[in-house]
Amino acid sequence: MSRPPGRKQENHKISRELFVLTYGALVAQLCKDYEKDEDVNTCLDRMGHSIGVRLIDDFLARSAVKKCRSYSETAEMIAQVAFKMYLGVTPSVTCSSPAGNEFSLILDKNPLVDFVEELPAERASLCYCNLLCGVIRGALEMVHLAAEVTFLQDRLKGDPVTEIGITFLRKAEDRKHKR
Amino acid sequence: MSRPPGRKQENHKISRELFVLTYGALVAQLCKDYEKDEDVNTCLDRMGHSIGVRLIDDFLARSAVKKCRSYSETAEMIAQVAFKMYLGVTPSVTCSSPAGNEFSLILDKNPLVDFVEELPAERASLCYCNLLCGVIRGALEMVHLAAEVTFLQDRLKGDPVTEIGITFLRKAEDRKHKR
Repeated sequence: MSRPPGRKQENHKISRELFVLTYGALVAQLCKDYEKDEDVNTCLDRMGHSIGVRLIDDFLARSAVKKCRSYSETAEMIAQVAFKMYLGVTPSVTCSSPAGNEFSLILDKNPLVDFVEELPAERASLCYCNLLCGVIRGALEMVHLAAEVTFLQDRLKGDPVTEIGITFLRKAEDRKHKR
Repeated sequence: MSRPPGRKQENHKISRELFVLTYGALVAQLCKDYEKDEDVNTCLDRMGHSIGVRLIDDFLARSAVKKCRSYSETAEMIAQVAFKMYLGVTPSVTCSSPAGNEFSLILDKNPLVDFVEELPAERASLCYCNLLCGVIRGALEMVHLAAEVTFLQDRLKGDPVTEIGITFLRKAEDRKHKR
C-alpha cells in the first residue's frame, strides 16, 4: 500500500455489480464446500475478520477520522463513514440497550444482495452477508474494541429490513457472560 | 435489476480495497479446496464466466454503447469502457496477429493485486486474476462472440506488465483448430 492517503478518490472505486457477483461466487463456493449453513456462516465471518484486520489501516488513512470517545460515536462512525466509504450506503443507527453498548445498523437496502432474489429453501440458516459482520469485528479489534457482530434481521429471510447488531464487550467478563 | 440505466452513477461504486480483499479470500479458499494450480485457475475462469454472462446486461444498459463493427472495436470497448467502468483502470490495447483477431490488453497496474506482494513458491502456476479472463469470455459469449481469454504476462510472476490475451474465434473450425 504505497499510495498517498486521501488522494485520487476516484481510483479507489470499482463497480458494485462486479463486487456483488464476485461475492456471490465466494458464498456459492463455500456452500459447495460445507454442508451446514452454520459452517458457511462461520467461514464467512472468519474471512471477514481477516479482511477487517487489514482494511482498518486503509480506513484510518483515508478517512482521517479522530479517535471515537464513546461506543455511540464508534457506531455512528461505522455507519456514516465506513459503510459509506466501502459500500456506498449509510445505515441508520439505533442504540438498543440501556447500558449503551448495543447498537443496530439498519439497512433499508443491502448493496451485497443486488442479484440475489431469495435464499434456496435448503439454505434457510445461511447468513449470506456474514462477511460484513466479520469485517466489522476484525476492524474494531484492531482499534482495541472487542465486539460481537451478528445479523439480527435479514431481508433475504423475509424480514422488513436488514439489521446488523453490534455489542461492544467492555471487559473479559462481559465477553464470557455473552458466550 | 430494477434501477434506471445510467442514473446515480455514484451508487454503483464501492471501495476497491474491499473488493480486492474479498477476491483474495475467494482465491485463498480455492487454493484450500484444490491442490493443483490448474484446478484453481479453471475454477476461477468458470466462476468468471458465470459473472460475465450476468454482467453483460448491466454493461449494455449502463454504457449505452452501440454494436461494435470489428474485433478491434470490441477490444477497445472492453479496455476503454468495460475496464474503466468495472475496475477503474484503462488497459492499452495492441493487435498481435496479422489476421486481426488476436489482441492484448496491457495493464501497467492490476487493480486486483493491491494487497498481494507475490505468489507463494508452491503456487507458481496460479493465475491469480483468472476470474477476469472468465468474465470477458462470458460477456463476449452473450453478444455472440466466441473468444479464448488467457493471461499472457503477469506482474505477480515477475513479468514487466500484466497482459491479457483475447483471441476471437471466428468459426467453429477456428475454435477446433485452437484447441
